[in-house]
Amino acid sequence: MNLDDTLAAIIPVDPAILTTAQAHQDDLIKPQGSLGLLESLGIQLCGIAGTCPPPFPERAAHVVFAGDHGVHARGVSPWPQEVTQQMAAGIAAGVAGVSALARQVGAQVTVVDVGMICDEPVHPDVEVRKVAHGTADLSTAPAMTREQAVAALEVGIAKAHELVDAGFQILSAGEVGIANTTPAAALIAAFTAAPAAEVTGRGTGVNDETLAMKTAIVQTALDLHQPSADRPIDVLAALGGLEHAAMAGFYLGAASRRVPALIDGVIAASAALAAHTLCPAVTDYLIAGHRSAEPGSRRAIEYLNLSPALDLGLRLGEGTGAVMALPVVQASARVMREMATFSGAGVSTPVE
Amino acid sequence: MNLDDTLAAIIPVDPAILTTAQAHQDDLIKPQGSLGLLESLGIQLCGIAGTCPPPFPERAAHVVFAGDHGVHARGVSPWPQEVTQQMAAGIAAGVAGVSALARQVGAQVTVVDVGMICDEPVHPDVEVRKVAHGTADLSTAPAMTREQAVAALEVGIAKAHELVDAGFQILSAGEVGIANTTPAAALIAAFTAAPAAEVTGRGTGVNDETLAMKTAIVQTALDLHQPSADRPIDVLAALGGLEHAAMAGFYLGAASRRVPALIDGVIAASAALAAHTLCPAVTDYLIAGHRSAEPGSRRAIEYLNLSPALDLGLRLGEGTGAVMALPVVQASARVMREMATFSGAGVSTPVE
Repeated sequence: MNLDDTLAAIIPVDPAILTTAQAHQDDLIKPQGSLGLLESLGIQLCGIAGTCPPPFPERAAHVVFAGDHGVHARGVSPWPQEVTQQMAAGIAAGVAGVSALARQVGAQVTVVDVGMICDEPVHPDVEVRKVAHGTADLSTAPAMTREQAVAALEVGIAKAHELVDAGFQILSAGEVGIANTTPAAALIAAFTAAPAAEVTGRGTGVNDETLAMKTAIVQTALDLHQPSADRPIDVLAALGGLEHAAMAGFYLGAASRRVPALIDGVIAASAALAAHTLCPAVTDYLIAGHRSAEPGSRRAIEYLNLSPALDLGLRLGEGTGAVMALPVVQASARVMREMATFSGAGVSTPVE
Repeated sequence: MNLDDTLAAIIPVDPAILTTAQAHQDDLIKPQGSLGLLESLGIQLCGIAGTCPPPFPERAAHVVFAGDHGVHARGVSPWPQEVTQQMAAGIAAGVAGVSALARQVGAQVTVVDVGMICDEPVHPDVEVRKVAHGTADLSTAPAMTREQAVAALEVGIAKAHELVDAGFQILSAGEVGIANTTPAAALIAAFTAAPAAEVTGRGTGVNDETLAMKTAIVQTALDLHQPSADRPIDVLAALGGLEHAAMAGFYLGAASRRVPALIDGVIAASAALAAHTLCPAVTDYLIAGHRSAEPGSRRAIEYLNLSPALDLGLRLGEGTGAVMALPVVQASARVMREMATFSGAGVSTPVE
């Protein structure tokens, strides 16, 4: 399905089902509200599916989108660029951080090369859907053409639709892409109208000097491209990364099929902002899995009015924070499906 | 094993294994520290087991201790006292909140009646190990005799040892006991030398007026018994509940067998304080699963120098917060056991 048809297929959640779901929560044998976030997540799942109680989202798929970045040449990261390929291979081989965490929660992991610089496959299990060999340096030119941005969005859409067709009931996305917190900061600045200094962070291990330089590069890119949130695809093309665009498409693809999608750190948040700007109703289908320490992520999550489920101090990327939230979301469905009601169980209620 | 032998069997974790474990974390293919709490939990598991990487704590058992409280007659809770029995039965039947959450995380649940007021079993699957038919009102008399407190501690110890003997590798505890946040507040005040007003909270649904009355009752109990942390069993007997004492014993029993134990809310925190006062090394084996909204819990967790893994806004009791942290702890073990190292995987390291 192309981008336009996908956007047209996303419908806002019906508020009536949320009211029904809240009433069901209040009848379960617990003090009202005492399951906190598990209650609000369960209600959101009802909204997404349009049924109360919600279906149990048993089959989970996690996709890691891999891409490279022209801005890496500017020294915004201490990590060599080949680490993108090495980590994509490591995830495909099942020995990276997200691999261990996904096994814990029972999520299937796929790595999609949407834009690494290499010509050769880095691992036989990496799916090659390459739109370009990395982006251009956003501080001197548009990172992508508009056509590339749309193609990357549609890689994400296609991947989400394939997974839903294969029976997966909850999706999450992560990324590898050395230097990719720089385009993420630029996207967040553009979509939320924030100055570079407020949304640029340390990524994975940047010192004070590099942070100042990275912030200046983001500001240079904003000054050069003068991005307008009225033209979200142009913003994505000018400032984004191929994996950012693919993740945005992935979220849109999930929402268009009424399947929940988990997001986590700053890259995911920037992609969610892009998706939201293309279609505001997408956020009804997004669940924030983890609070990021990156300042840009905090701004984006607040802008999207999401409440992260976890705060484990993760700053690895790969979608680790989204994956770790899966049992919490699944638990929220079990609460609504498996707990008894006051009337049904013969449990006494509080004295007024 | 009796209380004295259990206390003697608890040994502090060897700091050398923690150093080895930190070095292993730093060699895994991720930026150092980027897995946040998952790294510190994994290191703690190494310390508990005395090996690096740690064993995978696959088999998990959760025990819910049930007890009643004489202070309930003072009106400290809006819930009728029979709800203790109804919820014990509901948990045993598998339809309560913790039942749904334990199924999600794969933990076995047992309910132990250590002190409900009833004579008849409330459900065939509730284990009856009753020390007394509820406690006395702590604001007018010692809640328990010293012998009852020791007997309840030893119920917890015995239960922990039975579970470890049966092959369980990680334990958690919860409770049901209408009015049991009042004795928890009194215990925390006594063990941390805090005034009643700082550690008394709303439990599950107390209004301003009842909170003021509850705080006054806690202060009355403190004034009456003049508890001294130098005599922790006397403190438990004067102010505690049978389930509080059993949970303290359960934590001591886990630690004496070098098995990690998960704690969560205010009752668990008060029990952990009692265990810690009896044997400070027990905290090496305790993992705080969830941050409680109760002021007493926050004080206790801080006093014990623990860092809660989750903050999902849970305030149900039953050990729900401990159960929800299980996948996080298991994930921390997988990180250390399943991730590749930089040298082994041929992944490049940052440029200095």
